[in-house]
Amino acid sequence: MANTIYRYDQLKELTYEVFSKIGCNHTDATLATKVLLSADLRGIDSHGIARLIGYVRLWEADRVNASPDIKIVHETPSTAVVDGDRGLGLVVAPFAMQVAIDKAKNCGTGWVSVKNSNHYGIAGYHAMMALENDMIGMSMTNASALVAPTFSKERMLGTNPICVAIPAGEEPAFVADFATTTAANGKLEILQRKEEDTPLGWVQDKEGTDVTDANILKKGGVLLPLGSDREHSSHKGYALGSIVDIFSAVLSGASYGPWAPPFPAYVPMPQNMPGEGLGHFFGAMRVDAFRPADDFKKHMDNWIRRFRSAAPIHPDQPVIIPGDPERDFENERLKNGIPLHESVVTDLKSLAEKLNISFSF
Amino acid sequence: MANTIYRYDQLKELTYEVFSKIGCNHTDATLATKVLLSADLRGIDSHGIARLIGYVRLWEADRVNASPDIKIVHETPSTAVVDGDRGLGLVVAPFAMQVAIDKAKNCGTGWVSVKNSNHYGIAGYHAMMALENDMIGMSMTNASALVAPTFSKERMLGTNPICVAIPAGEEPAFVADFATTTAANGKLEILQRKEEDTPLGWVQDKEGTDVTDANILKKGGVLLPLGSDREHSSHKGYALGSIVDIFSAVLSGASYGPWAPPFPAYVPMPQNMPGEGLGHFFGAMRVDAFRPADDFKKHMDNWIRRFRSAAPIHPDQPVIIPGDPERDFENERLKNGIPLHESVVTDLKSLAEKLNISFSF
Repeated sequence: MANTIYRYDQLKELTYEVFSKIGCNHTDATLATKVLLSADLRGIDSHGIARLIGYVRLWEADRVNASPDIKIVHETPSTAVVDGDRGLGLVVAPFAMQVAIDKAKNCGTGWVSVKNSNHYGIAGYHAMMALENDMIGMSMTNASALVAPTFSKERMLGTNPICVAIPAGEEPAFVADFATTTAANGKLEILQRKEEDTPLGWVQDKEGTDVTDANILKKGGVLLPLGSDREHSSHKGYALGSIVDIFSAVLSGASYGPWAPPFPAYVPMPQNMPGEGLGHFFGAMRVDAFRPADDFKKHMDNWIRRFRSAAPIHPDQPVIIPGDPERDFENERLKNGIPLHESVVTDLKSLAEKLNISFSF
Repeated sequence: MANTIYRYDQLKELTYEVFSKIGCNHTDATLATKVLLSADLRGIDSHGIARLIGYVRLWEADRVNASPDIKIVHETPSTAVVDGDRGLGLVVAPFAMQVAIDKAKNCGTGWVSVKNSNHYGIAGYHAMMALENDMIGMSMTNASALVAPTFSKERMLGTNPICVAIPAGEEPAFVADFATTTAANGKLEILQRKEEDTPLGWVQDKEGTDVTDANILKKGGVLLPLGSDREHSSHKGYALGSIVDIFSAVLSGASYGPWAPPFPAYVPMPQNMPGEGLGHFFGAMRVDAFRPADDFKKHMDNWIRRFRSAAPIHPDQPVIIPGDPERDFENERLKNGIPLHESVVTDLKSLAEKLNISFSF
């Protein structure tokens, strides 16, 4: 199965057209496009344009409001709750992160919990908005349940990612962006295409037995929390995923745990949802709220250089700083284009046809 | 090797006497005792009275100041940096957490980074101070390096724990308190006493090979980050430990990474330390800075009950909420006493003799 390579600008044009056709205004369609494609640029292919058809299906099912009235519904000097009005998370999340940044300008830090939203793309985009303001950025979101807590076989949590972005001086920023599971769904999809098994410790079948079937989620199986099993501290991954769920949804009034709304539009909404939509949580901390920004950045440079030079096990594989692989992808793909799997191209063709968009595939 | 059981009040009396003898005033000795023994009560034996002799040795080596002038050296409405003046972390940390709580009262949240401190006991004690104020509490600390980043064989990070404590209504609070490694040092010590091996995925030898030797740290080996190996996402545990290090030490001006000061007084201090002492980071968020506290607590109760009833793999092992095991320990040990390993009793006897404290062991 071959990949086709597209220039970033081509995919930007197509994505913008799709968001426009479903009713986003110019500003929102531009922003949603930039956020969505930041995943493709950064090499997180599962969260980028491959999901565009999924967003459109949510809109068709009336689960996404293309012209939301996003607003602050509660606030203090350092906090806010934002109601996303069922908008695209790709638009709601940057609004909320900007609120966090503005609050940090005024009182050192800003913390925003969001309800009534939808999937927000990659956690990293939003957290990284803080960097240009000399702030540390944080971003997390809950997601539809695919993960079983330690000792359970039931889907109770999403892959609930966390991103922490920390500015440096001469060195590139530290950007840790990760699901709180051992493996994210995107890694299973890669193995499915190759018809390969997973390592033990990624997934469990519906009875709770450890298995290596990359298709097990379609058979009622679950993803495992970071740590894999009790002996390797899966209770820590379960705790992390829970913290993300509570900060994103219980604090804001979104729907939490097994009641988080599903991304695939064909999956029925959970019964008796205890809150509204999906939830996110954002933070921004001015580094000069702690010490002079130049001091901080000088020491971050020192931190990064020291860790980069930590003694490697194999001389050909040096230690990586969080954010290095994604930055390498971005540089390479801006230059050489973005490869799309043929199944993604097929989806995009049907989308263009349905929405009457002309695009040369 | 037998354990001896002591009543909490007995150990409190002994510990208070020890802290008094090294020069702590009444208030500080009382507080340090309460914080230290909260580890023994909560079943985290490696961080409690077993370490008392270690604190005294640090004082003897002039690495701990028993009468510190702990103060805020920089602040904004929602942040502060606290200089611990080389005091016991057991005293510095509650001071700093109280600053975070006071700031949260005024502007919704409070965030405090600490430099020039020492080991602060269990992360949980400090984060839990937030609970009685209807706040979410956070606590983290760096520690002397024992952990290798993914792809490395060098000790670069401590076990760098995180605690997040979240209040509920009728249910007990959610309290996740964990090292960002697969296994904490205390678990190795238990296996050493039993002369048993570790599972694969906990430790690596000094060449970077995965081994099962519970004594490997004495032979130049390292602990592995949460996730164990690259295939099981050890880069996520490495990122988490790094975030703790940066928030605790780079933000405050403490010493970070491989330069964090060692707990054992016989280990020489690192050369060219880039900051002062050990670092901590604390956060407090008023839940009513996001939504009415009663709403929040009602939904936390619902969250906790739903997770407690998640389908178990084995009917005799239900899902656990973070904080359950420690609370059970605390109830049981307050009632029936605290068992101390004979090696700990031997240490305490020598300490009592040296400091001229009369205590019936």
